[in-house]
Amino acid sequence: MIAKYSYLSHLRCPKCDAVYNSRQRQQLCACGSPLLAEYDLEQLAARWKPGDLSGRAPDLWRYHELLPVERPENVVTLGEGMTPLLPMPFLGADMGIERLFMKDEGIIPTGTFKARGAAVGVSKAKELGVRELAMPTNGNAGAAWALYAARAGIRATVVMPVAAPEITRNECAVSGANLFLVDGLISDAGKIVGQAVTARGIFDASTLKEPYRIEGKKTMGLEIAEQFGWELPDVILYPTGGGVGIIGISKALKELQTLGWIDRSRKLPRLVAVQAKGCAPIVKAWEEKRTESEFFPDSSTVAFGINVPKALGDFLVLQALYETEGCAVAIDDETLLAEQGKAARMEGAFICPEGAATFAAARLLRENGWIGAEERVVALNTGAGIKYPDTVRVDVPILQPGQFL
Amino acid sequence: MIAKYSYLSHLRCPKCDAVYNSRQRQQLCACGSPLLAEYDLEQLAARWKPGDLSGRAPDLWRYHELLPVERPENVVTLGEGMTPLLPMPFLGADMGIERLFMKDEGIIPTGTFKARGAAVGVSKAKELGVRELAMPTNGNAGAAWALYAARAGIRATVVMPVAAPEITRNECAVSGANLFLVDGLISDAGKIVGQAVTARGIFDASTLKEPYRIEGKKTMGLEIAEQFGWELPDVILYPTGGGVGIIGISKALKELQTLGWIDRSRKLPRLVAVQAKGCAPIVKAWEEKRTESEFFPDSSTVAFGINVPKALGDFLVLQALYETEGCAVAIDDETLLAEQGKAARMEGAFICPEGAATFAAARLLRENGWIGAEERVVALNTGAGIKYPDTVRVDVPILQPGQFL
Repeated sequence: MIAKYSYLSHLRCPKCDAVYNSRQRQQLCACGSPLLAEYDLEQLAARWKPGDLSGRAPDLWRYHELLPVERPENVVTLGEGMTPLLPMPFLGADMGIERLFMKDEGIIPTGTFKARGAAVGVSKAKELGVRELAMPTNGNAGAAWALYAARAGIRATVVMPVAAPEITRNECAVSGANLFLVDGLISDAGKIVGQAVTARGIFDASTLKEPYRIEGKKTMGLEIAEQFGWELPDVILYPTGGGVGIIGISKALKELQTLGWIDRSRKLPRLVAVQAKGCAPIVKAWEEKRTESEFFPDSSTVAFGINVPKALGDFLVLQALYETEGCAVAIDDETLLAEQGKAARMEGAFICPEGAATFAAARLLRENGWIGAEERVVALNTGAGIKYPDTVRVDVPILQPGQFL
Repeated sequence: MIAKYSYLSHLRCPKCDAVYNSRQRQQLCACGSPLLAEYDLEQLAARWKPGDLSGRAPDLWRYHELLPVERPENVVTLGEGMTPLLPMPFLGADMGIERLFMKDEGIIPTGTFKARGAAVGVSKAKELGVRELAMPTNGNAGAAWALYAARAGIRATVVMPVAAPEITRNECAVSGANLFLVDGLISDAGKIVGQAVTARGIFDASTLKEPYRIEGKKTMGLEIAEQFGWELPDVILYPTGGGVGIIGISKALKELQTLGWIDRSRKLPRLVAVQAKGCAPIVKAWEEKRTESEFFPDSSTVAFGINVPKALGDFLVLQALYETEGCAVAIDDETLLAEQGKAARMEGAFICPEGAATFAAARLLRENGWIGAEERVVALNTGAGIKYPDTVRVDVPILQPGQFL
């Protein structure tokens, strides 16, 4: 039998177990739940070994067997993936975690982890013949999808809040996408997109309303496992808005267990959903031991990427936390901005506010003993600090030529 | 004999051939020329083969034998290097170059190729016991050195023009560096730094005034060679301000020839120095067949990184052009901004204005026949477009919640 480029098998609803054909365009399940991609892991386990990765390019397509694109010519890539996994010894010592690491998702096209979902989502959309897509966004996902769609020759319509990071407007505009701002939240943008999708039959690329963005995000989990030599860390902290990252990492680790690439007898890393105090629906649900979250009213935070008052995949995020004995933590803006400064001064890493929240959460969980001093801890920095210039105060003297210091 | 981490041998002056000890801090040669690092290539050729790279992490330290840091514990890294080499089929077809590639230096810590020079320069400074450094900058180099210096625990003083990209101020500020603006050009900033260096005995990290930044930059040449399977392209275009990138690439390719990793009987790629019409001292010198450039008065361009009216290493840039039968081309701002838009719309790549200039130059050189239709051409994009938001015009409608498209 010839090795296949992808071992994608079908789509499955995690709520009602309905099965869908992955060779056709799908959006949500009829029951309203997101759909998840399933692979023929038994066949794949027999044919694919970690050693097969050596010599492959350092991008996320090195895992193509476990990704949904079936023909390599449909891959739309800007070279995304295999981002650095960096030791953070000074910041770690400062918070009493000896083995603290940062997975730096700022070192990727478009400057945030959103590139992963866009690369895989747009590639699969191209494979399925999509010619036009639309989506609401808090900025970075829209920028990534607009640029990857341009590379794929797919028309993109993006709607984002007026308050979204300004640079993401430029990215959408330069890509040639149809860009609209809304004087409201991402939920308002979502309603506008929903209407356009219904009225004009455009493909809906909203978070979790198509099944493949999560497959891109899961490569963060695959990379962490590979970079640690298939020995997983004890704790992974993730900034959680729509929650696709944490769902993806959890899915990746379970697939690696099934493949036998990581030890099935050992516990998975405890996953931590990090939110902002000003928008913490998952934290509230987790504290109340619920399986779904409620809409978080009047949400507000400087960590704009995680200002998502109600996520479609909330039940999957909470499931990942319960399954791994993880937790959910909320950080206030002042605390996360202070942590951003510390990471830059101590480690030379200019991280985004969402990423800073994960380090602040690690500090908090070490203080209250939830994280042990000797545990191996990975904090995800989901984007480059340069996309958020307003988070840094600059107060700098201006000299005239000929003046001296 | 035990394999060494680095085969650095000594420093040599390319002007007067004087030799300097690389185990001590050095700045310029007594004759005023920059110094270049020399390696024991004969010994290295016998011990190091391309196959030895497989399994090494995808960053620039995979070439540590050919880098100046002698002890691995002195490496200061944020995971820089092995940036994507991407085919640009649509833009290539548009300009009649079938095999057009982009080496994308936006996918790197701090968002520009300056990270390479900073990583290697700061690491070597740390190895040599430097505790404090100072430098003038057009923005991006200062940002990179400030952040890497923070990671190394080295104090940094950075002076940049008021007109330098604003985001680079934030990067310096967040790193904790001493930052100063000057109401003038990089040459004015240089004078201020020069005075501080003389008065206070700080290490001078100005372009080419220390010998190791170029060693970091040369890894672009090593990566291009490795990514093409040690078969070099026909033409490499590089945006040229201080010129360290083109000097570094030329040095790398010659070292690979000496090592026997690339075919010595084949010609090296023709190197093209791309400048802005508003600041084109190298182009002027090349057109006049001179070996050095003159100060370019009243320089101005939107491609701020290449606004360098007189480069200390100009003679090395010109030498690289003459040796490889390359050329020098100047592009006006309007043309390079138009090319930036094309790259985004056709290829989904949001490139910086300096990078856009290289594509515009490729287009020009194809039009006038200097580049053949079937030649393999690499354009260097030296930074992420997101660092230059002002280069994109955004004109976007604002909707109210409940409004429809």
